[in-house]
Amino acid sequence: MTKNLVVGIDLGGTKIYTALANLKGEIVTEVKVPTEAALGVTVVRRNIVRTVEHLTAQAGLKGQVRAVGIGVPGPLDVKEGVIYQAPNLGWRKVPLRQLLEESLKLPVYLENDANLAAIGEHLKGAGVGVRNLIYAAVGTGIGGGLILNGQLYHGAGFGAGELGHITIEPEGRTCNCGNKGCLETLASGSAMVQKALDLVKNGRGQTLLDAAKGEPQKINTYLIAQLAAAGNKEALSILKAAGTALGIGLANVINLLNPSLVILGGGALKVGLPYWEAMEKEVSRRAMQAAWQQVCIVPAGLGDRSGLYGAIALACQMGSEKWEVGG
Amino acid sequence: MTKNLVVGIDLGGTKIYTALANLKGEIVTEVKVPTEAALGVTVVRRNIVRTVEHLTAQAGLKGQVRAVGIGVPGPLDVKEGVIYQAPNLGWRKVPLRQLLEESLKLPVYLENDANLAAIGEHLKGAGVGVRNLIYAAVGTGIGGGLILNGQLYHGAGFGAGELGHITIEPEGRTCNCGNKGCLETLASGSAMVQKALDLVKNGRGQTLLDAAKGEPQKINTYLIAQLAAAGNKEALSILKAAGTALGIGLANVINLLNPSLVILGGGALKVGLPYWEAMEKEVSRRAMQAAWQQVCIVPAGLGDRSGLYGAIALACQMGSEKWEVGG
Repeated sequence: MTKNLVVGIDLGGTKIYTALANLKGEIVTEVKVPTEAALGVTVVRRNIVRTVEHLTAQAGLKGQVRAVGIGVPGPLDVKEGVIYQAPNLGWRKVPLRQLLEESLKLPVYLENDANLAAIGEHLKGAGVGVRNLIYAAVGTGIGGGLILNGQLYHGAGFGAGELGHITIEPEGRTCNCGNKGCLETLASGSAMVQKALDLVKNGRGQTLLDAAKGEPQKINTYLIAQLAAAGNKEALSILKAAGTALGIGLANVINLLNPSLVILGGGALKVGLPYWEAMEKEVSRRAMQAAWQQVCIVPAGLGDRSGLYGAIALACQMGSEKWEVGG
Repeated sequence: MTKNLVVGIDLGGTKIYTALANLKGEIVTEVKVPTEAALGVTVVRRNIVRTVEHLTAQAGLKGQVRAVGIGVPGPLDVKEGVIYQAPNLGWRKVPLRQLLEESLKLPVYLENDANLAAIGEHLKGAGVGVRNLIYAAVGTGIGGGLILNGQLYHGAGFGAGELGHITIEPEGRTCNCGNKGCLETLASGSAMVQKALDLVKNGRGQTLLDAAKGEPQKINTYLIAQLAAAGNKEALSILKAAGTALGIGLANVINLLNPSLVILGGGALKVGLPYWEAMEKEVSRRAMQAAWQQVCIVPAGLGDRSGLYGAIALACQMGSEKWEVGG
């Protein structure tokens, strides 16, 4: 039987997004299931394996799958297929490739999820044909993927693209990474929630607390976005401050890498226009004139499927050399 | 006659550094002459042309030169050979390639000087065989060149590598580029002098002023370095603050690009160990653990000839395809 299908998987802290696709990278069928990360590696592995088997059986296409590509949230050894650390999954040193290959009896290829999102956007989304682009994933944290000279750029140890850990405020809040004032502590979804909690703590966030029915733990980016849309000053100031910080970070990257395109993806972008506008204003203030004239900043063209398409491309490339993923 | 020589030129604001080299990139003979930038483009052009003709005539090798490579201090259109802007030369939109080709009757290739220094170090200096390296030129200003995946990285409009214009202090001093708090306003040679002048102005720099015999305009990095070496507290604090700022900037680049090597060149490094130590301490505090473990930070292996060797490589490549300069 000709093997003319692949499986792409975007493994997130909350959901596993899986698709069956042809070798042109077109999705045949797709499904989302809960990750159940809290139940441990064995359960997550089982959820992945079951989903893949379910998808292929459902389509009556078992046996036609050539390879599996999977995006994982954290730094990893791409060659060995080992995840060093994935805070959202609670994992450390998990040999995911080996675990999945044993169960699926298929070749499995791993890559960082933000890198795959960059590849997805480069091949099928907002960045088709663009030689130099930056993908920034702005969600609970902030990650990034770099397409430079038409190829994914990995760096010396597969660690490139850590946009979230650019210092914006040298004496700012301590980040999960140990540094102070990282972009992630100022512009991410969790940073916005933290800012709201700070306001509540300092007695300046009563309207935020009221909207959360007096329960601070119910404050989330969705709530902040709703309040901002209704004109709430505190909520608006949170969005603007976060957008401004993102703008500083992006201006740094633009000055350093002179890309033609910056693509922004991730859930935190849904907070609304004031965030985007503050970002854009700050980039225009800080980027060098020529670099600013040469760059566009756009939302992801594939919505929440950027990483999924990248995972499909990864699986396709390994079979056909059709996709340029390396670098 | 076989054409087996090239000319490399490093065009600086003060001096023109010119070398005749063979196709292995080995320097046969070299010379430095004053740029005389204040006298205008015509004089600088004459100085370059005369130097090249003098060098080749002296060696009895006129007619054996295949091509000329030249590094220029400022952003340029590499393909057209036009310098957009070179503040150190007082130039704007100068078609230097055309001007030199008319006089020299030889093919002339232009490139940004920090990019050529990166290439020089990559081919002959501290970065031989290193696939991913950052070269930072720390002098009056701060520039940079990026070797990524084994090739010079230009970006969308030949503007990549502007390390000096990463924001370090969002509300800091206004930079020449228009942005506030750029690395260049904090860690360069001119930033250190400015800091000394600020101290004098605020009445806290009496020892600095005394060393300059009461004339603030005589304060330069050499003087600050001498005082620091003698244990002067104000001078030491200037070096440490500047080194710390450089460390923040380099940590950002390391987190973003995960290079194996950072090479530091330029005159400002001669201010002494406290500057370097403060830089290294700050990078170790701020770079992500894995990226920090994978990177070395070293001084330029070719001293003040990094750019010159890069210019030679550029000229060689154009004749022989032997060097990998593109990208």
